[in-house]
Amino acid sequence: MTYSNKVSKIVYGGDYNPEQWSEDIWEEDMRMFKLAHIDIVTLNVFSWASLQPDENTYDFTKLDKIMDLVRENGLKVCLATSTGAHPAWMAKKYPDILRTEINGLKRKFGGRHNSCPNSPAYHKYSVRLAEKLADRYKSYDNIVAWHISNEFGGECYCENCERAFRVWLKDKYKTIEELNRVWNTAFWGHTFYDWDEIVLPNLLSEHFAPERTMFQGISLDYKRFNSDSMLNCFQEEYDTIKKITPDIPITTNLMGFYPVLDYQKWANHMDFASWDSYPSNGDSMAKMAMSHDLIRGIKKGEPFVLMEQTPSVTNWQPYNALKRPGVMRLWSYQAVAHGADAIMFFQMRRSIGACEKFHGAVIDHAGHENTRVFRELEALGAELEKIGNMTLGAKTDAKAALVFDWDNWWAVQLSAGPSCELQYYEEVLAYYTALHSNHIPVDIIGTENDLSGYQIVIAPVLYMTKGNYDEKIRQFVKEGGTFVTTFLSGITEEHDLVITGGYPGPLRDIMGIWVEETDALPKGSENTFSYKGIKYPAKLLCDIMHLEGARALSSYETEFYAGTPVIVKNEFGKGSSYYIGTSSNGEFYEEFIKDICMEKGVRPVCVTPKEVEATERKNESGTYLFYLNHGEKENKVVLEKDYQDILTDTFYHKNEELSLKARDVMILKEAADA
Amino acid sequence: MTYSNKVSKIVYGGDYNPEQWSEDIWEEDMRMFKLAHIDIVTLNVFSWASLQPDENTYDFTKLDKIMDLVRENGLKVCLATSTGAHPAWMAKKYPDILRTEINGLKRKFGGRHNSCPNSPAYHKYSVRLAEKLADRYKSYDNIVAWHISNEFGGECYCENCERAFRVWLKDKYKTIEELNRVWNTAFWGHTFYDWDEIVLPNLLSEHFAPERTMFQGISLDYKRFNSDSMLNCFQEEYDTIKKITPDIPITTNLMGFYPVLDYQKWANHMDFASWDSYPSNGDSMAKMAMSHDLIRGIKKGEPFVLMEQTPSVTNWQPYNALKRPGVMRLWSYQAVAHGADAIMFFQMRRSIGACEKFHGAVIDHAGHENTRVFRELEALGAELEKIGNMTLGAKTDAKAALVFDWDNWWAVQLSAGPSCELQYYEEVLAYYTALHSNHIPVDIIGTENDLSGYQIVIAPVLYMTKGNYDEKIRQFVKEGGTFVTTFLSGITEEHDLVITGGYPGPLRDIMGIWVEETDALPKGSENTFSYKGIKYPAKLLCDIMHLEGARALSSYETEFYAGTPVIVKNEFGKGSSYYIGTSSNGEFYEEFIKDICMEKGVRPVCVTPKEVEATERKNESGTYLFYLNHGEKENKVVLEKDYQDILTDTFYHKNEELSLKARDVMILKEAADA
Amino acid sequence: MTYSNKVSKIVYGGDYNPEQWSEDIWEEDMRMFKLAHIDIVTLNVFSWASLQPDENTYDFTKLDKIMDLVRENGLKVCLATSTGAHPAWMAKKYPDILRTEINGLKRKFGGRHNSCPNSPAYHKYSVRLAEKLADRYKSYDNIVAWHISNEFGGECYCENCERAFRVWLKDKYKTIEELNRVWNTAFWGHTFYDWDEIVLPNLLSEHFAPERTMFQGISLDYKRFNSDSMLNCFQEEYDTIKKITPDIPITTNLMGFYPVLDYQKWANHMDFASWDSYPSNGDSMAKMAMSHDLIRGIKKGEPFVLMEQTPSVTNWQPYNALKRPGVMRLWSYQAVAHGADAIMFFQMRRSIGACEKFHGAVIDHAGHENTRVFRELEALGAELEKIGNMTLGAKTDAKAALVFDWDNWWAVQLSAGPSCELQYYEEVLAYYTALHSNHIPVDIIGTENDLSGYQIVIAPVLYMTKGNYDEKIRQFVKEGGTFVTTFLSGITEEHDLVITGGYPGPLRDIMGIWVEETDALPKGSENTFSYKGIKYPAKLLCDIMHLEGARALSSYETEFYAGTPVIVKNEFGKGSSYYIGTSSNGEFYEEFIKDICMEKGVRPVCVTPKEVEATERKNESGTYLFYLNHGEKENKVVLEKDYQDILTDTFYHKNEELSLKARDVMILKEAADA
Repeated sequence: MTYSNKVSKIVYGGDYNPEQWSEDIWEEDMRMFKLAHIDIVTLNVFSWASLQPDENTYDFTKLDKIMDLVRENGLKVCLATSTGAHPAWMAKKYPDILRTEINGLKRKFGGRHNSCPNSPAYHKYSVRLAEKLADRYKSYDNIVAWHISNEFGGECYCENCERAFRVWLKDKYKTIEELNRVWNTAFWGHTFYDWDEIVLPNLLSEHFAPERTMFQGISLDYKRFNSDSMLNCFQEEYDTIKKITPDIPITTNLMGFYPVLDYQKWANHMDFASWDSYPSNGDSMAKMAMSHDLIRGIKKGEPFVLMEQTPSVTNWQPYNALKRPGVMRLWSYQAVAHGADAIMFFQMRRSIGACEKFHGAVIDHAGHENTRVFRELEALGAELEKIGNMTLGAKTDAKAALVFDWDNWWAVQLSAGPSCELQYYEEVLAYYTALHSNHIPVDIIGTENDLSGYQIVIAPVLYMTKGNYDEKIRQFVKEGGTFVTTFLSGITEEHDLVITGGYPGPLRDIMGIWVEETDALPKGSENTFSYKGIKYPAKLLCDIMHLEGARALSSYETEFYAGTPVIVKNEFGKGSSYYIGTSSNGEFYEEFIKDICMEKGVRPVCVTPKEVEATERKNESGTYLFYLNHGEKENKVVLEKDYQDILTDTFYHKNEELSLKARDVMILKEAADA
Repeated sequence: MTYSNKVSKIVYGGDYNPEQWSEDIWEEDMRMFKLAHIDIVTLNVFSWASLQPDENTYDFTKLDKIMDLVRENGLKVCLATSTGAHPAWMAKKYPDILRTEINGLKRKFGGRHNSCPNSPAYHKYSVRLAEKLADRYKSYDNIVAWHISNEFGGECYCENCERAFRVWLKDKYKTIEELNRVWNTAFWGHTFYDWDEIVLPNLLSEHFAPERTMFQGISLDYKRFNSDSMLNCFQEEYDTIKKITPDIPITTNLMGFYPVLDYQKWANHMDFASWDSYPSNGDSMAKMAMSHDLIRGIKKGEPFVLMEQTPSVTNWQPYNALKRPGVMRLWSYQAVAHGADAIMFFQMRRSIGACEKFHGAVIDHAGHENTRVFRELEALGAELEKIGNMTLGAKTDAKAALVFDWDNWWAVQLSAGPSCELQYYEEVLAYYTALHSNHIPVDIIGTENDLSGYQIVIAPVLYMTKGNYDEKIRQFVKEGGTFVTTFLSGITEEHDLVITGGYPGPLRDIMGIWVEETDALPKGSENTFSYKGIKYPAKLLCDIMHLEGARALSSYETEFYAGTPVIVKNEFGKGSSYYIGTSSNGEFYEEFIKDICMEKGVRPVCVTPKEVEATERKNESGTYLFYLNHGEKENKVVLEKDYQDILTDTFYHKNEELSLKARDVMILKEAADA
Repeated sequence: MTYSNKVSKIVYGGDYNPEQWSEDIWEEDMRMFKLAHIDIVTLNVFSWASLQPDENTYDFTKLDKIMDLVRENGLKVCLATSTGAHPAWMAKKYPDILRTEINGLKRKFGGRHNSCPNSPAYHKYSVRLAEKLADRYKSYDNIVAWHISNEFGGECYCENCERAFRVWLKDKYKTIEELNRVWNTAFWGHTFYDWDEIVLPNLLSEHFAPERTMFQGISLDYKRFNSDSMLNCFQEEYDTIKKITPDIPITTNLMGFYPVLDYQKWANHMDFASWDSYPSNGDSMAKMAMSHDLIRGIKKGEPFVLMEQTPSVTNWQPYNALKRPGVMRLWSYQAVAHGADAIMFFQMRRSIGACEKFHGAVIDHAGHENTRVFRELEALGAELEKIGNMTLGAKTDAKAALVFDWDNWWAVQLSAGPSCELQYYEEVLAYYTALHSNHIPVDIIGTENDLSGYQIVIAPVLYMTKGNYDEKIRQFVKEGGTFVTTFLSGITEEHDLVITGGYPGPLRDIMGIWVEETDALPKGSENTFSYKGIKYPAKLLCDIMHLEGARALSSYETEFYAGTPVIVKNEFGKGSSYYIGTSSNGEFYEEFIKDICMEKGVRPVCVTPKEVEATERKNESGTYLFYLNHGEKENKVVLEKDYQDILTDTFYHKNEELSLKARDVMILKEAADA
């Protein structure tokens, strides 16, 4: 089943802001939407100021017209609650709605992401608006989903947040003694005697740079608190709407690997996941794929909605190159290949003023259909109609899992030492890229996920081992799983307090080693090690370890710790664990992942040239193989089974060699008896 | 006629601050001024605190003495009003005079450029001081000009400015509905219902960096407002003084291409233009020349005053290299060659404390005349005496005009996308440099200027076409002119709202093209095109266009738009237009400009080696040819007419070859029958 | 005599924070301290919040236990007063204790270095705590020193500081007229009529960047005032403690070349000097040595305490590489070689939470003695026991002095021009490095020091010549000394007012030159000169000078001042002076220093390979030669006398060649009849 029972194909459309235009334009929009096979629009994203001109007045006249217009034109609606940016009059009348920056300065009205998540005014009026919208439009059966606020994000350091932080802490730690313990306040004499002595950790208190803190525990809790505060805003709107329209699923548009909000926690409160995909210039196909897999992962494999992407160009990058011909289609299908059941864009019509006027749109400033971009959109729309309901609800069957955990991300980024170059995300990406290059389907999981369905679990830089996560790993390996972790793992528990007695702390028995020291390599310098006869670099950090049951697969080749182990394997219970004591390059990871997958019998989707991505999705109607040629040249693939191309209806036989043009895509349905 | 009827030669002098010295030094100053042929001093630039020790007391004793001293010594005076820096006591008593920074923080007393332009206290006391000065010194017939304040500049974001901004907006837009329209506030739900809801666009509201905004329209209006606020300060002093001394011209010292103030608007309120020239290390001769031409241009070709330059060295650059021997003279004459009728310096005597103590001066810390710098100053002074009134009031006869427009500058710099490297000034400089290399006299004009006198008008990156500026261009071309514009032109109207229907908007018929997309090239990458058999780079942005009547002169050579036009020419009415769809290098611009000038019969002043600048000025007494050898080696020029050297009285004949030593200058008067 | 009469060997230990741990760990600590020959701990550095839980309660229970524990275990104590970080409750109750940043923002509770030095609450409670501590523990005869606060530093710009600044100024200048004179307020019309008009120079007033000011005089006085304010905090605690325990010496831990505090002035108020040595990655042996010599120098050659260093690794550098095997021992002995009589560490046991959990410690997170680091610590502890009292109190006999002056440092760094690359510290380091390479013992002295004991005095960039310092130099040279100074010297007097009449001002007669101009070289460019037939670069600044009695030893080779002198020597009285008109490279300085030392008969300690440092200390028991091999390879030295190795008791003969392994150290006692 897909995210909504009202969709019977991959919906196609995006953010539509007719309120920026005079009504004579609206009919032209409808005409062009039909040309492009658009069947869904997201409405009402930024209309709060329009819907509520003052404290007591609500005016839905224009929205009514728009809702009727799109219903009459057969369009489905993703209805936003407009609470992503508050009205100017509200900021003036209730300044508590304005955020305070990390530097301690109170903001004025402007921009978006601008409401304090602990503002009483925001809570009151955002919930009231959501209620009015749900009540007014509950009878529109073309609403397929609610879209709460927009791209929740940012932080606030105001007095209301400070008070709420103290409440949050008291709920969590109960006593001030426990708070002092988990924050290790004996260090630098920070002992608190009363909750009211606690201040938010910002540039006026514990931080000496936005991400550099003197008390990791305080800053880590602030990040959790801030994520929870925003989640609370979401939840209040959710509950209000759910009461009125219990059958319409509710979401909010996420932003991939967004460091501010713990999406794994959020996902538990959302009916389905949706996100906005804006890769930066030069992002690899694996990097883009990892974001899709994250979003699929946070809802345990359920299909997701690609809520926003640009049809052509962004405006906010330093250099906003055009998406080359074919790229919009390729990246759209990449989302589908990784679990998307909807392809949507920001935006339907390009605005004429303010900061996004140079952001691409379905309908450009030229205003007509005779553009390269529109022609590509039209062609994709036709294809999606052809595909119909075939791929809807299809799942990815992964035997490998990659652990990504927000608490770990925060803790590693906040850490003072050992190296300024350590980036949790980059280390996870390195392993993801190796899995992707090997065409191994992978789930991106958090620490709450069950591991029993996997053959291989990889947890790079598992710096923080929360609660009994070590025990979950221990059972997984004992029962036959393969577990991989790396340098700087098992260091702290959930409050970022070091687990003493020898690194990697609670993982020590599983890994069969003791890490005595960690050497941070100066900028530009590298150590080396050899694996299966080939020399690879050891970069960033080098754990210096002693074997306690494990076996060394490779050793450092230079420095005073030359000859000591860098890659080790430990047999543990029925399974085995690998500890990679340093950071290396893509060639090494690709080779290493290939070996452990082969060892466990975890098979690739299929074998293809480097530039061709391959994924598989399965549902009741069949199994679908996606070939995506990310290259700028033609590439050939050889089929491993009999297939039918669902875009062309062509049948192909096993061992047949097919040609994919530059940036071309093929979706092949496995023949019933294949 | 020159800027003042009281000058009968190029005056020579500069900022003189005897109030920093004991009176025994003053006589020594007079002695040295005479040695150096100094005949003018700018007085009273920073004396407010001295003239007004408290709210009710004014004390002109010292200024009286100074005024008498310089009059007795035959010096002319440029009398400043001292309002460029307010007294400390005033900041303490009337904090509204202090500015608020773009980050929202209120300043304390310190520095200069420090008064809020909308401060009631500043208005009251600055005007009162101007009035007292005018009244007291009106009888001094050696005052040749008033110098209001000093280097107006900077911005303020205080509450008084916020209130004044609302008034300014209401005056301009009349209704809140119109304001919402021109700012496109439907975007992101920014609708304003009351003028009081509007806040200044700064780092606490719409800006995420000093020059990066979320609402271009708001920020653009703030820039206009701020420029107008300061102009209002100028105007109030102007009006007050004018009533008392109607015959003394009034100016304020400008700063060349200074982004904060719209000098083209300001110039309409000034009796004559004057400016402070401080090129940075490594500035090209063309870059320096362009600033002089700008200042000449804002007063429609009238002579200007070089109010400040350093005799030897600056103190505020990262590396303050000495002006090499001959450079002070060379650059002084370059100003004259471009329209200056005065050569003045900051400063006459080098101060001993605070931040400008390492800034060069006519009289150095050594305190005597036996320095290299003083000897060069002395020699130049003698030359200026020799020149006498010959060049006074002479004009430049330009058939080419280059459009530079502050609104465009602001709008382009504030734009979010398409490329962070786009710099309006740099694009204009590229075309100026090509004109300069070809020795084509050029006027730098704004959008208010009449075009009818020109053969060629070049408007690089005419991103914003205000009001009916397109119609002015249309008429110009129809009547036979040659118009050149570039990529990213015709995009928005005066509120930075996009003109829909196809770029370049209102210029589309004139240029004969439709620009469908614009590709921003990633850092370091280039496309190419060929012009007359030579390959040139296409950089920064590449417009992808369709011909609608125009003819392609060159096409892109790579990328998916290879083969599409990059340089096009359109015959339109009796004239023609050129659209340059990308940014290229100096070699291309030089060649291209040469060709269009030749086509229109626009002739260079003369032909010289690369390093020798040549300009011409004409007045009733004759036509003067300036040769300026900016090279560090000797260069030879061949005369195209008969001339007399006005510095040496030597006569030269047509076709004669003359030698210019490194950094040497020649001023040749055209023989009467030449 | 060494710093305390209670020590009879080089004490060995460091910062110990048992309050961060449960009491069961304490006994284990004692066991491990014994293993490592630890005999001293610094206690109570960050316990204020623990000792004083509220305004009226003091609780010494835990400290009593700790004091008893360490006394029972035979450990000496360096007892800190805990005033380096105030309690959270105090910040809440008395916000005046919180600092205001240079940007004008008031801080909240957090971090350390966090108390305003002019806060009434801080003064009251810090002194009261010091008094209670002194009174409570006065009978503990194992206290060898008091350690006031911790690493005094930072700045405050609050209203209390502003008021105190006015008082400080009034004390210093008496009249507002004198203040206006020394700050040259006539410049930019800054005249003050009342003390209350003065504001602190920060980013809201005179500064446009943290170290860039518009009024050097104001900013310079602020730096002096801030240093004095903190010194006053120190002094108040000092006086209070001294009354109670007159026999226990008092110190505070300094930080080497720390720009914020004038340690030369501070040292006059401290019983002995101590400091925390944290070299950055890649610091040269000379750079580290210079810091030790500074600390020895501020107490006129008395032995000092190395209060902190890391046993293994830091956490706050961008890349925290491990100290390689042997480095901890090498650098510890380097401190001793330069005058240390104590070797102490931060920290004894590695903390588990907050920002220093990755900072190395004697007892690591592993918690036991079986680590590389502990083994090295143990070995060094044994050696120090072996050395016993031999080197205690030994002095360095230097005939060369290098002038380093905080006022000069501040003035040069605050200067606007002539070059952004000018760094006072770096210029002094260049000369120090040359002395060090030549193994010339050197004292680093301030301007208060007597010069009569020296043969050579070098004062690089003596930009500011305070009071009659020129006369001190004049006498020194007249009586036969060799004086060296450089470009940009003799420019200003103590208020940073230029001394007019010709540079180098009051040094002009001594140097026998007049410097007419100074050329700042653009980034990356160099002039050259030749010295003894070899060409060297002239960098940064080039003084252009005229000889007035001096003799040119070398001239510039390019630019318009080619052929003018760059290195000159002047015979003056019985001595001579050298003026080095530019900045050059290490090769030149090494050669030049060798020559002037040879000329004056100032002999190196001995001759060794490049990588081997050699120093000498002498006391009543004998003369000790330190060989420190900083190389990563073995190096050989040849003895110039008979010696006994005090670590091995081996006897060596003159001319014997000894081998020093990589990073090895030898301490040789001169044979009695050598």
